[in-house]
Amino acid sequence: MSEQNIMDSSVFIATSLDGYIARQDGNLDWLDKANAIVPEGEDCGFVDFISTVDVLVMGSNTYAKVLSFGTWPYEILVIVLSQRDLSVPNELSDQITISKEAPEDLVKRLSAAGKQRLNIDGASVIQSFLSKGLITDMTITAIPVLIGEGISLFGRTEKDIELEHISSKAYDFGFTQTKYLVK
Amino acid sequence: MSEQNIMDSSVFIATSLDGYIARQDGNLDWLDKANAIVPEGEDCGFVDFISTVDVLVMGSNTYAKVLSFGTWPYEILVIVLSQRDLSVPNELSDQITISKEAPEDLVKRLSAAGKQRLNIDGASVIQSFLSKGLITDMTITAIPVLIGEGISLFGRTEKDIELEHISSKAYDFGFTQTKYLVK
Repeated sequence: MSEQNIMDSSVFIATSLDGYIARQDGNLDWLDKANAIVPEGEDCGFVDFISTVDVLVMGSNTYAKVLSFGTWPYEILVIVLSQRDLSVPNELSDQITISKEAPEDLVKRLSAAGKQRLNIDGASVIQSFLSKGLITDMTITAIPVLIGEGISLFGRTEKDIELEHISSKAYDFGFTQTKYLVK
Repeated sequence: MSEQNIMDSSVFIATSLDGYIARQDGNLDWLDKANAIVPEGEDCGFVDFISTVDVLVMGSNTYAKVLSFGTWPYEILVIVLSQRDLSVPNELSDQITISKEAPEDLVKRLSAAGKQRLNIDGASVIQSFLSKGLITDMTITAIPVLIGEGISLFGRTEKDIELEHISSKAYDFGFTQTKYLVK
């Protein structure tokens, strides 16, 4: 990482075993089905993780998906990175910012503002951060199902991206969670 | 599994974290590079696994790749499933058979012949066996690198394929290995 970036930009995400974060149309039915057998109160570390995060950065597709839930689930500041002109519901205007910044500019600005950790969410935003060398760590929870096609967590890269395995955990209900640092 | 199939058809394979078993041209340089830091004598369970296998089934691409190594590495019977007319070097004619059988016919024949376990290798053969419900278990070793594009272990499926997590292991050198049964 470059010297000015002392902030972490972290991925914390679930994928099917074949690497999809959603079906092509954004549907998460396969994940909901898998979650149905997860014991109540078990969040696979999400609350602990999100408590360390200052800002959640997502793309427009993830934003649309989360808005469709009806209830906005996040308490932390959310920045939606998109070149599109998106609107924010009035009641969420102090929680959500739309930005057209490039990933590296956003990281510089938030780092200079003293932010310690970003959560980067959504396949295209994650991929653009990865391609710029801006992701510091990834926690990936593999769901034991193959869905065959969908929105892939990873995409093309200009070069190989080497990772350092930090920890792995297998849950009784079949999810496996692995944490990597990006070298 | 259907009643006549008491034989296991097993996958035992390494992938990049983004799910590729090789670069698009078959190159395994990224895997060789990762293997360079693996302690001598550590095979991540391959010898134990292959000692339980009666027949190794692969496709024509994997066959061509293994032939290119110069030294044929397998002692067990290999069946190459391909619709192409492939030749077998004379000195390997008692170890390698070329077959145009459909996966289900091969499984029936080998099961009837008393075989206990097949190792299914190569992306297209694995995918065709999976789509027919013929894979019984998969041991996948994830290498901590993103290579961006290549030959994907998994492909499209007609329906979701649910898996049962059996075990996970993380190696000191960063590989993680997960074993699943196919439901």
